[in-house]
Amino acid sequence: MPITGENLIDGKAIHGTNGEVRAFNPNTGETLEPAFGGATQADLDRACALASEAFDDYRNRPLEERAAFLEAIADNIMALGDELVDRCVAESGLMRGRVEGERGRTVGQLRFFAQIVRKGDFLRVVKDAADEDRKPARKPELKARMVGLGPVAVFSASNFPLAFSIAGGDTASALAAGCPVIAKAHSAHLGTSELIGRAVQKAVADAGLPSGTFALLFDTGRKVGQGLVADSRIKAVGFTGSRGGGTAFMKIAQERAEPIPVYAEMSSINPVLLLQGALSERAEKIGAAFAQSVTLGAGQFCTNPGLLLAVAGDDLTRFEKSAAEELAKLPAQTMLTAGIHKSYEEGVSRLENHAAVTTLAHGQAGQNCQGQAALFTVSGQEFLSDPALHEEVFGAASLLVRCQNMAELQTILEKLEGQLTIAVHLADSDSESVRSLLPLMERRAGRLLVNGFGTGVEVSTAMVHGGPFPATSDGRSTSVGALAIDRFLRPVSYQDFPAALLPAELRDL
Amino acid sequence: MPITGENLIDGKAIHGTNGEVRAFNPNTGETLEPAFGGATQADLDRACALASEAFDDYRNRPLEERAAFLEAIADNIMALGDELVDRCVAESGLMRGRVEGERGRTVGQLRFFAQIVRKGDFLRVVKDAADEDRKPARKPELKARMVGLGPVAVFSASNFPLAFSIAGGDTASALAAGCPVIAKAHSAHLGTSELIGRAVQKAVADAGLPSGTFALLFDTGRKVGQGLVADSRIKAVGFTGSRGGGTAFMKIAQERAEPIPVYAEMSSINPVLLLQGALSERAEKIGAAFAQSVTLGAGQFCTNPGLLLAVAGDDLTRFEKSAAEELAKLPAQTMLTAGIHKSYEEGVSRLENHAAVTTLAHGQAGQNCQGQAALFTVSGQEFLSDPALHEEVFGAASLLVRCQNMAELQTILEKLEGQLTIAVHLADSDSESVRSLLPLMERRAGRLLVNGFGTGVEVSTAMVHGGPFPATSDGRSTSVGALAIDRFLRPVSYQDFPAALLPAELRDL
Repeated sequence: MPITGENLIDGKAIHGTNGEVRAFNPNTGETLEPAFGGATQADLDRACALASEAFDDYRNRPLEERAAFLEAIADNIMALGDELVDRCVAESGLMRGRVEGERGRTVGQLRFFAQIVRKGDFLRVVKDAADEDRKPARKPELKARMVGLGPVAVFSASNFPLAFSIAGGDTASALAAGCPVIAKAHSAHLGTSELIGRAVQKAVADAGLPSGTFALLFDTGRKVGQGLVADSRIKAVGFTGSRGGGTAFMKIAQERAEPIPVYAEMSSINPVLLLQGALSERAEKIGAAFAQSVTLGAGQFCTNPGLLLAVAGDDLTRFEKSAAEELAKLPAQTMLTAGIHKSYEEGVSRLENHAAVTTLAHGQAGQNCQGQAALFTVSGQEFLSDPALHEEVFGAASLLVRCQNMAELQTILEKLEGQLTIAVHLADSDSESVRSLLPLMERRAGRLLVNGFGTGVEVSTAMVHGGPFPATSDGRSTSVGALAIDRFLRPVSYQDFPAALLPAELRDL
Repeated sequence: MPITGENLIDGKAIHGTNGEVRAFNPNTGETLEPAFGGATQADLDRACALASEAFDDYRNRPLEERAAFLEAIADNIMALGDELVDRCVAESGLMRGRVEGERGRTVGQLRFFAQIVRKGDFLRVVKDAADEDRKPARKPELKARMVGLGPVAVFSASNFPLAFSIAGGDTASALAAGCPVIAKAHSAHLGTSELIGRAVQKAVADAGLPSGTFALLFDTGRKVGQGLVADSRIKAVGFTGSRGGGTAFMKIAQERAEPIPVYAEMSSINPVLLLQGALSERAEKIGAAFAQSVTLGAGQFCTNPGLLLAVAGDDLTRFEKSAAEELAKLPAQTMLTAGIHKSYEEGVSRLENHAAVTTLAHGQAGQNCQGQAALFTVSGQEFLSDPALHEEVFGAASLLVRCQNMAELQTILEKLEGQLTIAVHLADSDSESVRSLLPLMERRAGRLLVNGFGTGVEVSTAMVHGGPFPATSDGRSTSVGALAIDRFLRPVSYQDFPAALLPAELRDL
């Protein structure tokens, strides 16, 4: 399938005339062909009109059809074969194995939601029987189910060109909920986006779904994205990216005549608590594992361990030594884009030059867009006094806060903003400490984990990949796992309806 | 129990020194004793600090304790006996039978949520088993449950001094979710609020719960309410009231450092579709039933039928005649406050003086704060051309839109904003019309009902009392029924936790 650089609207490929943008190979510094034409306001308008038109038809298809459609997308993505992997590797700088793994995760996710659709629990169908004899008034019959919100705008993440992108978790869960999707491609993986978009578009056509069920738009600036969020026909937004981008969309969404929900997964430093018993028992082992985790995928995971909290002492020094030694062995890795690499270097340099911060270790140096891992340390008191130190540095850098005691560690955790994950390394002797910290940990993060790091995010029923603001714009939600579908649903109740007029799933209830 | 006019904070009654406000009897025009002292900024701050402190303790009590606490509130409200009913009748102008009925609904709602808490389904506990042998990496164990958002600010409605007030649906569902509540009393029923607040406060003390689990504040202006929504310790807002009030709170909530959800039930005109078959079969009967429904509780229901849509013709004329005759017999009824009565009169007068609007009927005239029912009519074309005609007139007034044909009726429905309810009156011969309208109805409202009016709102599992903006600020939610508890919950996932450290409900999962 050739990559043509076109927007995908109404079942067709349409050349955008609103400027041009090209992909970039961060490994080689090369610009990649072809040019992608930015969508015009008319393209956006057409995509929104079609999505709005498609909504009632698409959402009222039998669940089996909807499930088969999601599976067809997965099949079509696999059928792209090496063309997809090659292009994705070239655009993202990610290693081939990682891209293949992410592809597996992406199609697995589509199939996971197909199963959820088939099972139908997400509809939460329920009935209250009538009681004709109730006094003073008869009790009516009520039946309820969830319905989709309407067309959803999906914004791809830079750091997951497949799993959090055009046919990633937001798209899969929105389509599963019965909502048409208009996806906006990320400039970091334009060709990948088109290939995936074509796979979805083909599935739409093959299933005989209305053409407005899916569209893909390219943008040479921010106008298309902003226009999508502002458009009255869009009823929800899925976004993975920066805090600035997410909060800008939240603002636009709230200022609409009809405000809409924005599900933005944004910013998290994912604190790791190293408790005394664990350090005493296995400081070196944790240090080595930490170094591997913080550098996974060049540190470009939303769940990257950007902050370590522990009480200062000899055991912590053992951890530091081990982590530093391991980190020093690890090669620099190509980052996703030149812009992300530049931001990372700036963030690292801010820490290096911070008067209160000491550099503990560096990974091996790199070239071009390669990010060199780094570990810093600061005292608890200094960390508390400078909120700038609480900010995310996106990449393979982490800050170890040496606390005076557990009380200071707890104070620091209390002052932190909302997080995607909090990990705690513990031994049996730490149980009491964990019990006293647990309520606070629950208030601060969507996922708590023991003796591990948050960098692996399972696509499964009990996964929560969300957390209090600013980890996500809406801490009631998760962007990964079965609950992700709930983001795009609302309840509707049917009172005293003749069975013949009810939707299929309520008819025989 | 004497009414003292005090704020209820920290298990005590505290005289507010921030101005004074007194209740008003809309039937007699009398001011009622005592004076209520407005909460100061220090009072508000103390209530928020205590609620925040109470949160972890309260939410971690066994579910049975939480359920018994809700039931104790219900018992304490019933134990107030006639004192509560007398004061509520005096303050609200509502009839005694209505107040007693609303009290039954309120305690029934508390007991309904006690059952939901006991059952525990709202926790949505779920487990993904570990797979130690999975390649390339082991699959961790994940368990998840819902936890409360944190302290909730609850704002009472003017029109339901019990059921949507201090211990109404928002408070019951927030407490059921494990969230402390700070309630702000409505000036339309100050004494009722204090009595109910004392009933809750007593239940908190008797159950040995932390004093911050509940507080009641009085406000002489808007500062306390605005301060509550802005306070960083408040994590969600429940509100029933005007569109202006609700959207103002939405704005404050979004501008916080940590934005929070606002559940505001605001504005709905609850369209009633009169289809041809139904009119032909029983126009008179529907007309008479409509007149009874639009005047229920002086028309002061969120679900009051404020808009009728039908195709013009002889059968519609029969409906009009019947509704007008019935309405003319109905007495004026005392409205809740002088302010609400004044707004109603202004709204009615705007319609009466609108060039395109014809007055079809009036109810009997009244005195003081009594509202006179009114029915108006306008053509479909004129209705479409003037959005001001789409606005709610809170009270016993309704506007009948005479459509040219079903296509125009559909266009009108398409142009309307989100609604709490849409009712449709139909006969067998209308089935095709309903089928073609149903997808649109589902997009416009939270509850659809056949051959009735939306004025009765069951407290039950399948009830949805919410709808797309501006019916509610958050169309994904309902403020009545089992799903109301979901508004105050967020998911938390526990990865690889030793059983001993898990919350009780996840331990043996």
